[in-house]
Amino acid sequence: MKGIILLSGGMDSMVTAAIAARECDEIYFLHVNYGQKTEQKELECFQKLVEHYQPAGTLVTSIDYLRQIGGSSLTDDNIAVTDHQNTDQIPNSYVPFRNAHLLAIAVSWAEVIQADRIYIGAVEEDSSGYPDCRESFYNAFQQAINLGTADDTKIEIITPVIHLTKPEIIRKGIELKAPFEYSWSCYRENEIACGKCDSCVLRLQAFKKAGMEDPLPYRVRL
Amino acid sequence: MKGIILLSGGMDSMVTAAIAARECDEIYFLHVNYGQKTEQKELECFQKLVEHYQPAGTLVTSIDYLRQIGGSSLTDDNIAVTDHQNTDQIPNSYVPFRNAHLLAIAVSWAEVIQADRIYIGAVEEDSSGYPDCRESFYNAFQQAINLGTADDTKIEIITPVIHLTKPEIIRKGIELKAPFEYSWSCYRENEIACGKCDSCVLRLQAFKKAGMEDPLPYRVRL
Repeated sequence: MKGIILLSGGMDSMVTAAIAARECDEIYFLHVNYGQKTEQKELECFQKLVEHYQPAGTLVTSIDYLRQIGGSSLTDDNIAVTDHQNTDQIPNSYVPFRNAHLLAIAVSWAEVIQADRIYIGAVEEDSSGYPDCRESFYNAFQQAINLGTADDTKIEIITPVIHLTKPEIIRKGIELKAPFEYSWSCYRENEIACGKCDSCVLRLQAFKKAGMEDPLPYRVRL
Repeated sequence: MKGIILLSGGMDSMVTAAIAARECDEIYFLHVNYGQKTEQKELECFQKLVEHYQPAGTLVTSIDYLRQIGGSSLTDDNIAVTDHQNTDQIPNSYVPFRNAHLLAIAVSWAEVIQADRIYIGAVEEDSSGYPDCRESFYNAFQQAINLGTADDTKIEIITPVIHLTKPEIIRKGIELKAPFEYSWSCYRENEIACGKCDSCVLRLQAFKKAGMEDPLPYRVRL
């Protein structure tokens, strides 16, 4: 089994990589710079994870046209990253249709290197409510892969943490000895995490619930 | 009605733009450089079409990671573009899952500028047999759009030439006064079309069947 893992540098994709490393004979790491403000730190985490897991191949790509398109606080300098809010609304950190781009790159690469699986660390319920993190989206995209690639190409999307809560993801990572120090979640900062954005708050809450200490430095810890 | 048109610089997408210009109140032109060998000429055609149709907005993006990924004669310098062959096989000019990337970019842009439609000039039967030109692929991708974007986002993929033959596309273009001199089909050359690659042969055959003269210069004309 040959698996490509979409590795942002975040916690969920890191634990996904740890799972894939167990399940596959050969792993390939794919990192996509989509013009987000914290790319510097995320790429650094990716490189540390490459050293740690020693994949058979790596690909680092850039889709910074998502910066040209804008519309998200993660990619548009005119939109500020807001503090975490308890709301059902999609937060302004939503990058329009981002995960479709990530999947498409993984599929093209998978078709060329004949990989069987694409792992993506999307989380549906216990997360920010992004539409492209819903399982139903991945099922639809799977159909698009089946119909949009050569008939003898068989590529399966695997979303191993999609129905886990964040504390469950942390416990899973610890069980698999995943190196949490090489993951980054903050949407704002590249050195010391802000502790206040959506992504920091979800992560800190999860470590608290899991009864664990997050190894990253924070300005504020809940 | 606000429509984004994926405009490669090829004949099919140019006629698609002519159709969209009739159907929409506002048109937006999107060109994607995917690292193909004839990008110089295709971009030139795109720019001429922008002057001709005066869209409300344009976006030119680059996904040259498809060159890093390779696997196609259009993007990989180690794979030669073959002469046209009568076969049911997918030709080596197939760029793995390319149209999914084009659609994903169009969807992200559409979500930000609130466009209602994405036009793409895919041709299913009378073409090279690329899997990502099948109508069933577009239906599946439509589902992925519906599920992977915000619930109040409504974006429809329109494939107006998908079931037309190439001569029908030419007749449609002539009816709509589409400027064929600003389109480019050759997979190999940037100045004088080779007349022998798949794309040249399909185009020349189509003009012949339509009883029209192709305004482009060719080294060899069937």
